[in-house]
Amino acid sequence: MSRRALILYAHPEPRSFCAALRDVACAALAEAGYAVGVSDLYAQRFKAVLEPEDYGVLSAQQAAGEAAPFNVTLAQRRAVKEGSLAPDIARELEKLLACDLLVLVFPLWWFGMPAILKGWFDRVLLSGTVYGRSALFENGKLRGKKALVATTTGGPAEFYGAHSLNGDLLDILMPLHRGVLAFTGMTVLPPYVATHVPYAGEAARTRMLEEFAAHLRRLDELTPLPMPRVADHLHQMGHLLKAKAE
Amino acid sequence: MSRRALILYAHPEPRSFCAALRDVACAALAEAGYAVGVSDLYAQRFKAVLEPEDYGVLSAQQAAGEAAPFNVTLAQRRAVKEGSLAPDIARELEKLLACDLLVLVFPLWWFGMPAILKGWFDRVLLSGTVYGRSALFENGKLRGKKALVATTTGGPAEFYGAHSLNGDLLDILMPLHRGVLAFTGMTVLPPYVATHVPYAGEAARTRMLEEFAAHLRRLDELTPLPMPRVADHLHQMGHLLKAKAE
Repeated sequence: MSRRALILYAHPEPRSFCAALRDVACAALAEAGYAVGVSDLYAQRFKAVLEPEDYGVLSAQQAAGEAAPFNVTLAQRRAVKEGSLAPDIARELEKLLACDLLVLVFPLWWFGMPAILKGWFDRVLLSGTVYGRSALFENGKLRGKKALVATTTGGPAEFYGAHSLNGDLLDILMPLHRGVLAFTGMTVLPPYVATHVPYAGEAARTRMLEEFAAHLRRLDELTPLPMPRVADHLHQMGHLLKAKAE
Repeated sequence: MSRRALILYAHPEPRSFCAALRDVACAALAEAGYAVGVSDLYAQRFKAVLEPEDYGVLSAQQAAGEAAPFNVTLAQRRAVKEGSLAPDIARELEKLLACDLLVLVFPLWWFGMPAILKGWFDRVLLSGTVYGRSALFENGKLRGKKALVATTTGGPAEFYGAHSLNGDLLDILMPLHRGVLAFTGMTVLPPYVATHVPYAGEAARTRMLEEFAAHLRRLDELTPLPMPRVADHLHQMGHLLKAKAE
């Protein structure tokens, strides 16, 4: 059976440079033997905002104070047990669980993901299904999957770097790399970042798309980013992890 | 005229600990003489996803390829000039521009803001109005305003810190502190972070709410977080900043 890749793509303009990055990823991964699927969040009009009804909890009852206070973690676990997940979450979760490689393609807005993509993680990464109290990092439930970020900046390359105005791109992407992808157990590959995109001419765009394709052709040789391991922190917090073991 | 504070509050549960933090902020800031406004993003059903129509650009024409490709920066600048901003963006922008202090109250989800709050920044922080190519950091158009983050974690305090599993909270909050708040010129005050909230009993909750109130009573004495200055990076990028000066 061939390996599966899921591309999460989030840009409001179908003719954007991000769309071209997505197309490069589709082609390069297909060539490498992946079965490639795309979640085009804008085209799907993906719901970004996590709400009680996503997990079968009635908002009206909540608002009236008739139900217990809405707790995201508990509601997610109960929805899985009772089969009351919103259909769009169930569909995206199925694609995520089936993939071997997750590729995120998005423009860097305010040092982070567009809200529609952040909302995908907020809503789809269910407690108990993709992580648990001790099922984190190397024990996370998505272990074995690889993840790779491809993003674009408006600012020029000179704005990024440890001693530059905006700081290092790996620091900017840390919450996503470490707090989302590695946290759930995924192996995080080095990102591809295209800079100064709105000001790039045809030649620069072509060069960047070729760089990205080359990056993807090296996928199996890329050295993953270093990430923390639960096993190295048991002296600090073993009692907490054991207290409510998964 | 009294100083104005704007609280951006983003939690789906009206009885949450975040709601209690919001109430503490309202009371403490009113006591300090602020006129306090709250944007309760869930209650407002705030639209999280930035789309062409937010800036008077017709999606159908975009999709059919009849209009120029949608460029967020250009569309925002044109919408301000032509008065075609979505009404909800215009309202939130007015509150932002009028405030002296911005307080963000939200649960930390996946090392970041809930999508509904990220979308507030995506949609409301307009190019040309709150920042420009050289109007960044100490030259940002929101200079003179202060900003403070109040957030909550599910993980216990032991999970956070430079040598802990999740890393330092200031590193986790860096994209928000530096890439959103300081980037537009705001002075960023030290955050208040309540940890292990879902597992905290009444006593711990009361103690944390009192800590937060005390934090806010010291507002005028808090030392702002260190942030980069454009003036210190002109040797690296002065040519870029001058090329398309604001």
